[in-house]
Amino acid sequence: MSSNFLNALGGTRLYPLTDRRLSGLSHAEQVSQLSEGGATVIQLREKSLSPLEFCGEAQEALRVARTRGIKIIINDRVDIALALNADGVHLGQDDMPPEAARRILGPDSIIGLSTHNLAQARLAREMPVDYVAIGPIFATLTKQASDFPVGLEGLRLARQAVGELPLVAIGGITLENSLDVLTAGGDAFAVIRDIWIPAGQAAAQTKRLLHHP
Amino acid sequence: MSSNFLNALGGTRLYPLTDRRLSGLSHAEQVSQLSEGGATVIQLREKSLSPLEFCGEAQEALRVARTRGIKIIINDRVDIALALNADGVHLGQDDMPPEAARRILGPDSIIGLSTHNLAQARLAREMPVDYVAIGPIFATLTKQASDFPVGLEGLRLARQAVGELPLVAIGGITLENSLDVLTAGGDAFAVIRDIWIPAGQAAAQTKRLLHHP
Repeated sequence: MSSNFLNALGGTRLYPLTDRRLSGLSHAEQVSQLSEGGATVIQLREKSLSPLEFCGEAQEALRVARTRGIKIIINDRVDIALALNADGVHLGQDDMPPEAARRILGPDSIIGLSTHNLAQARLAREMPVDYVAIGPIFATLTKQASDFPVGLEGLRLARQAVGELPLVAIGGITLENSLDVLTAGGDAFAVIRDIWIPAGQAAAQTKRLLHHP
Repeated sequence: MSSNFLNALGGTRLYPLTDRRLSGLSHAEQVSQLSEGGATVIQLREKSLSPLEFCGEAQEALRVARTRGIKIIINDRVDIALALNADGVHLGQDDMPPEAARRILGPDSIIGLSTHNLAQARLAREMPVDYVAIGPIFATLTKQASDFPVGLEGLRLARQAVGELPLVAIGGITLENSLDVLTAGGDAFAVIRDIWIPAGQAAAQTKRLLHHP
């Protein structure tokens, strides 16, 4: 099961997330720019649109992604992923349990789970997930500072905790520290701010993030 | 398709909704009290719990409902309805489109749609829904006052607009005005405040609401 996510990465190590607020762009336009930079799998994350609006935006984004062979993972809303036939969902610790999502989505969908400490990472190993995200690795402004940064040492320990499961490092990762994150055991790294800030450089920055490591 | 909802009502006209904040009770406890009063179909509405917490509470509530032959409709979250094998979903105008929900849930699930004016009620007629809710009928404190009350006259017009579809009146309905609502064309009426306020009388008030009309 775990190879679905690695297949989606297609040998790359970058897992970009959309952010309408930071980018000022629709999800489709963000997917277009990330695609131009060479991204192979993208998570659509939406915290302000209504479900109806997000359905519409995600459908457009999927249309763009499909023409370019990019996989799309939907944050939180399993129903929207299912309705649009997206490639998977990313679940937080407060979202629907992965077991329930797996029952709904079937064996071929990619299911990812956010974890914020070793106990959660260990538990994830027993769950029907395709990858585990651990973070924040570094301090970050993107999410409220409710979770303490786990650091590179935390990432190393998480690497052992999740066993064979693909591990995605998230939180405060930039072009400058991305190699450290891979060295510490991340199979891939998620990036938000370092792609969308500063504005207008998403494609170029995606390319740098893909090729630098 | 439309008979699924009438079947769930089983000849009654009351469609109670849960409200954790107003009742101070878990969804399961609310279902238990409504069941004691004789309710046959209940909508679980949740605006503050996380999806994970709501999954847990709704599962408990469904367990109670199943032992008593009560149908459970989940507000908004099609994925949670699907994961728990609930009897249907209730969608707002900003939720996932009914067509998408129908694709996910299949032909046997009950799908209801909130409407707030005649244009929305007319459109609902062309959608794959089992019932249409129209409201608020009267001014209400339960929802933010974003929608203007449609009144009994609006309800009469909605009755014509939705054709054969079962019509649920919602918003400000009490024991005192419930008969007017049925006379104006509601197949059923939804109640929140008049069941949960004052506290501790939900079962008795449910019984009165069921038998008074």
